[in-house]
Amino acid sequence: MKVLITGIDGYSGWPLALHLLNRGHEVVGLDNFVTRRRVREVGSWSATPIPSFPNRQKAVRELLGKEFAFYRGDVSRYDLVRSVLEKERPDAIVHLAEQRSAPYSMIDVHHAVRTQVDNIGGTINILYAMRDLVPDCHLVKMGTMGEYGTPKVPIPEGFFEVTYKGRTDPNLPFPRQAGSWYHWSKVHDSGNVMFATRTWGLRATDVMQGVIYGIRTPDITHDRLLTRFDFDDVWGTALNRFVVESILGLPITPYGRGGQTRGYIALEDSMQSLRIALENPSARGEYRVFNQFDAAYSVNQLADLTQKIALEFDLHPVIEHPPDPRVEEEQHFYEPIHEELPKRGYKRTRELADVMRELFHDLLRYRRRLEAKRYAVLPRVNWREADNRAHLVAPARAPPASLHGGSTSGPTPSSSKA
Amino acid sequence: MKVLITGIDGYSGWPLALHLLNRGHEVVGLDNFVTRRRVREVGSWSATPIPSFPNRQKAVRELLGKEFAFYRGDVSRYDLVRSVLEKERPDAIVHLAEQRSAPYSMIDVHHAVRTQVDNIGGTINILYAMRDLVPDCHLVKMGTMGEYGTPKVPIPEGFFEVTYKGRTDPNLPFPRQAGSWYHWSKVHDSGNVMFATRTWGLRATDVMQGVIYGIRTPDITHDRLLTRFDFDDVWGTALNRFVVESILGLPITPYGRGGQTRGYIALEDSMQSLRIALENPSARGEYRVFNQFDAAYSVNQLADLTQKIALEFDLHPVIEHPPDPRVEEEQHFYEPIHEELPKRGYKRTRELADVMRELFHDLLRYRRRLEAKRYAVLPRVNWREADNRAHLVAPARAPPASLHGGSTSGPTPSSSKA
Repeated sequence: MKVLITGIDGYSGWPLALHLLNRGHEVVGLDNFVTRRRVREVGSWSATPIPSFPNRQKAVRELLGKEFAFYRGDVSRYDLVRSVLEKERPDAIVHLAEQRSAPYSMIDVHHAVRTQVDNIGGTINILYAMRDLVPDCHLVKMGTMGEYGTPKVPIPEGFFEVTYKGRTDPNLPFPRQAGSWYHWSKVHDSGNVMFATRTWGLRATDVMQGVIYGIRTPDITHDRLLTRFDFDDVWGTALNRFVVESILGLPITPYGRGGQTRGYIALEDSMQSLRIALENPSARGEYRVFNQFDAAYSVNQLADLTQKIALEFDLHPVIEHPPDPRVEEEQHFYEPIHEELPKRGYKRTRELADVMRELFHDLLRYRRRLEAKRYAVLPRVNWREADNRAHLVAPARAPPASLHGGSTSGPTPSSSKA
Repeated sequence: MKVLITGIDGYSGWPLALHLLNRGHEVVGLDNFVTRRRVREVGSWSATPIPSFPNRQKAVRELLGKEFAFYRGDVSRYDLVRSVLEKERPDAIVHLAEQRSAPYSMIDVHHAVRTQVDNIGGTINILYAMRDLVPDCHLVKMGTMGEYGTPKVPIPEGFFEVTYKGRTDPNLPFPRQAGSWYHWSKVHDSGNVMFATRTWGLRATDVMQGVIYGIRTPDITHDRLLTRFDFDDVWGTALNRFVVESILGLPITPYGRGGQTRGYIALEDSMQSLRIALENPSARGEYRVFNQFDAAYSVNQLADLTQKIALEFDLHPVIEHPPDPRVEEEQHFYEPIHEELPKRGYKRTRELADVMRELFHDLLRYRRRLEAKRYAVLPRVNWREADNRAHLVAPARAPPASLHGGSTSGPTPSSSKA
């Protein structure tokens, strides 16, 4: 199968390319490298040093003996999307080329609008080019479990039966209640992909992706093949930050009460899931939704586990709870369903604790890169503020070891007003 | 109360300004006149000749003895939105400055992306400027009943109680299933407005507007105060087209089977509804939804009524059913609820048949303006096509009187492939 990966230079795009190449699929890549620039914009970098893209291609050639075509460009340009599809005629597209950070989207009005405009526009461009050039192509669209928010009922995979005022609709979209401009951009994409799929008879799988953890897959056999690992408050996940905080001698910082519960999945198992979706495409005109996660954890559970595993590396972090810079429920019901992927053969291959050990092991090798950006780990973007740009400027000196240390120049979290 | 009307030059923005001015409210207007340009883009114009905006202001001054401030500009520019709010500090904003045509959004990929990007970006800009400058201001946001699509259960006003797998959530957003890029842009807005309202403690009323009919309100006392009236396939409603088809000696053309049922409301009663929303603002942090329509009609019911009333004007149109250029259910259940406005004092003041008589009366005076654009009345934008631009070019000669007349050069509807 020939698979176009948009966003091939990203955290999951890169290991997906390796995964598919090693399993006999043909890969074509597209990227504009904007994530590299945007991570620099907030004063951070990947914990792992990432080769330039030509060097990534070279590593694949030399270490895996594989070749793949790559296009540099932006999916916001319809002419580019069209010309790539016209030339390559892929059997499937895995569309990962979107702004993927909730805090980045909450920096200010310009980041909010940019996130929604770019994410939505790119997806519409791909849908139109598919409609016109490769109507049989299968779109695997990266969404997020965060589209659903935290309703007080279990979360089905996209659709559910509704009985209301004595009548029943067997198949309504499950309501979305996202928590950032970024998450809403994915909700908007979902509506748009559903509409185009049904209007034009396209094929689509909308992946409600859980939070991915880990840095390794069996295909990453050399450091030259490593994927990026973000650990700052804007681009890193809570789990990433907790591990890095432990290494840097900072407290582990679950925001607020720490009961925020989400679905999680190992990087390797996310690759497995995407491959299952690709190898079992939806029918023409079918828009289907997969809840792509493996298990749900609260932020407190992640903090406790990080603290426990840190001890194995002779690290002794304390846990502190800064005010939640986000506006979200800090204790809530959470019971998402995930049956579509297991039905098609998905099996968990990695355990969270093992992946976390691997993370500590890998990241301790890059300790100096973490040290250099330690000020970027603490929360700097507050959901309640209209303009957070000033908080993102690198401070003159490193922040205090404790969040409650009373420094005035450090980037301590903005106080909660809610 | 001081009300900023974005889109004040539009079909409902203009009569809303007159309505509020005549009832003692202060009005500020904002518009970029893009609808005037976009109606020209598809080869059409308003049946009523619309004065330039300075002449509209002059007419208000001379005929009503009222003044109001006006800003020419685009809500896509954050600096402009901010400077208007900073200077005017309105108590409420009625946000009508969005691309409002479903067929326009379906012309091609560029019109699709433009519609969503402009509509979404403008609304986010307004939300940020409110958050920053006038957090107590009440946003009355124009949405559409079309956000809901045609589910098999009754449609509540925005939210409903869900019981699923033994658990109950008392207040989930009702699922949206829109039918065009335009309608989806309004769905996306709704999510964004809900998010901002709850995150920042703003006030918002999201108006699920039914199709508005009519051209007159009691405030339109002179021709110089008339609002625009669109009748082409891109900018006109089905009802508008039916009346104009009758006048032009064309068949009345309900698309497909004609069972497509929607909520409708008279222009005057829509103004009443918006005033009720303004005079009864939502609380801080409250995002509420009003289903703003008066009664539901199928396209066939409208066609029959038009045919009947046309007789009173000695017009004898036949009814013909071209293939539906849209992708939609042509026969379906439809039972939307509308209690929020009546609870606050809304009462119907106009009957559909009376408004239709008034329409015939007014439009017969502008018959020559209708004649000049008769080729623009028949369906030219097909939902199933990726690029409809060629259909929008004015033909060398007028279309045949019958849709089935066999002309090859006329803009007969594209055949349905579904």
